[in-house]
Amino acid sequence: MPIKLVFLGTSAAVPTKERWLPGIALVWNGDILLFDCGEGVQFRLLQLRLSIVKVKAIFITHMHGDHIFGLPGLIQTMNMYNREAPLTIAGPKKVVNYIKSIIEITLYDPGFIINFVEAGEDRVVYETKGYTVKSFTVEHYGECYGYVFEEKPKPGKFNVEKALKLGIPKGPLWKALQEGKTVRVGNRIIRPEDVLGPPRRGKKIVYTGDTKPLDKVKKVAKEADVLIHDSTFSIELRDKAIEQGHSTAYDAAKIALEANVKTLILTHFSSRYKDLSKLIEEAKSVFPNTVAAYDGMVFEVN
Amino acid sequence: MPIKLVFLGTSAAVPTKERWLPGIALVWNGDILLFDCGEGVQFRLLQLRLSIVKVKAIFITHMHGDHIFGLPGLIQTMNMYNREAPLTIAGPKKVVNYIKSIIEITLYDPGFIINFVEAGEDRVVYETKGYTVKSFTVEHYGECYGYVFEEKPKPGKFNVEKALKLGIPKGPLWKALQEGKTVRVGNRIIRPEDVLGPPRRGKKIVYTGDTKPLDKVKKVAKEADVLIHDSTFSIELRDKAIEQGHSTAYDAAKIALEANVKTLILTHFSSRYKDLSKLIEEAKSVFPNTVAAYDGMVFEVN
Repeated sequence: MPIKLVFLGTSAAVPTKERWLPGIALVWNGDILLFDCGEGVQFRLLQLRLSIVKVKAIFITHMHGDHIFGLPGLIQTMNMYNREAPLTIAGPKKVVNYIKSIIEITLYDPGFIINFVEAGEDRVVYETKGYTVKSFTVEHYGECYGYVFEEKPKPGKFNVEKALKLGIPKGPLWKALQEGKTVRVGNRIIRPEDVLGPPRRGKKIVYTGDTKPLDKVKKVAKEADVLIHDSTFSIELRDKAIEQGHSTAYDAAKIALEANVKTLILTHFSSRYKDLSKLIEEAKSVFPNTVAAYDGMVFEVN
Repeated sequence: MPIKLVFLGTSAAVPTKERWLPGIALVWNGDILLFDCGEGVQFRLLQLRLSIVKVKAIFITHMHGDHIFGLPGLIQTMNMYNREAPLTIAGPKKVVNYIKSIIEITLYDPGFIINFVEAGEDRVVYETKGYTVKSFTVEHYGECYGYVFEEKPKPGKFNVEKALKLGIPKGPLWKALQEGKTVRVGNRIIRPEDVLGPPRRGKKIVYTGDTKPLDKVKKVAKEADVLIHDSTFSIELRDKAIEQGHSTAYDAAKIALEANVKTLILTHFSSRYKDLSKLIEEAKSVFPNTVAAYDGMVFEVN
């Protein structure tokens, strides 16, 4: 199943009629991971038929309101649906106080466990059998992070011809070998590497959150399948961008080029841009495989 | 200009695709007053072309998340629009801590003054030349309030015939008399009451917020033009309603009848009701002039 990136909100700071506040859902094999949680994220999930129940973890980039004001409502709705599964929330230290003070004020103590994980430089904040999510520091305002989602390497392709040649009957033994287990056929031991090709690299997706352009992102995003980059302004407002700890579409494209990513997705657009054609143009002039996100956009990572 | 009531969110506790969380905008002569501020209220204002700039005051009924999680985002957006006019927020004491802790966490100190007004029993919490808003206590969970919006009595109708008979020339003198000022025509003193009919009662609108059915609301809402009442459940779930501090459509209608209001508007519906016909039917059997609110509904108070 391809990984899906669903853009829930793509505006910066204030909502417009078309663009709400930051939130990205990454759908992996039925798991939903949320990156940022601006106001209205729970409505977008509803509208786009993404089940709140399937949200396993939420990754917060920084404590500005447009990135976190959807969190209390989402948690409360999970609670109303009698969630029992624990929820991981990773982000700056302050996320803990934020959630705790909201719970205290509204007197809604969730009936499920929230695991807070403090983000940090090059730190694994969430891990399952299939993937890891790492945080890395960026520069915007205060404690700010980006995140790297990376699938674990997948076993190599199963070579049917070889398997038949080795006399392994189709069925459970094939499955076991595909899962990396050693099997016995008659007296012989068959190892996975006897019938599998070389392990295949998993998908890699990088989300910068809000940040000024940083050289380090070129390394962090190296060879990524998708880089989702702050693109608040056009190159004409580069000084303003840097001053406010944001990037321009042009800068995002330069980083995408040097990181040699497959696709660059621009997001977090200033509400001053009713029309993004200038931003898309300046990015594409540097890195042609650029996409501008919009609310409700679904991007399949193939 | 008629007063307009615009329903921004009409669901209880959790949003549905059609119904978001509680919020009502009362539009009076260009002023906007908000009653409750659930998540998404700022989006609904945008969608319905109600300017955030015109919001003069916000009245919070109680501290449950579905009624307050839209407040931080709304304040932040006002700030982004460089609001300078002060904003009044009335509600339970805890509103102050809520807003202060949000400001501390997000480091967005608004550039305008927020006047917090503690609600109480039969207390004027907001007043202008044209109207007052009073709070009254209700029973739901913890500190909970309803609000009464009441226009000040308007001067009586100007009697053109009388004015001409008294030799008052059309123009500024008429205007002065209409505004309640005494004028001089030649040697004569003309008092407003010489040309105006009896003062006319202003409009009265009552919003209960979340509450179980209360006898006192019959008094508070006496002769109101509109009573907006908690109608979370149908009569079949009356026990559940009372236990949770909510009302049924039937109970709301009984109160409307005894208070002799003109129109009853039901709102705050449990998400279990995809179709409200049962609730509307049970209310109308008691009080025919009942309307069920929906998101985006505009009700003119004539």
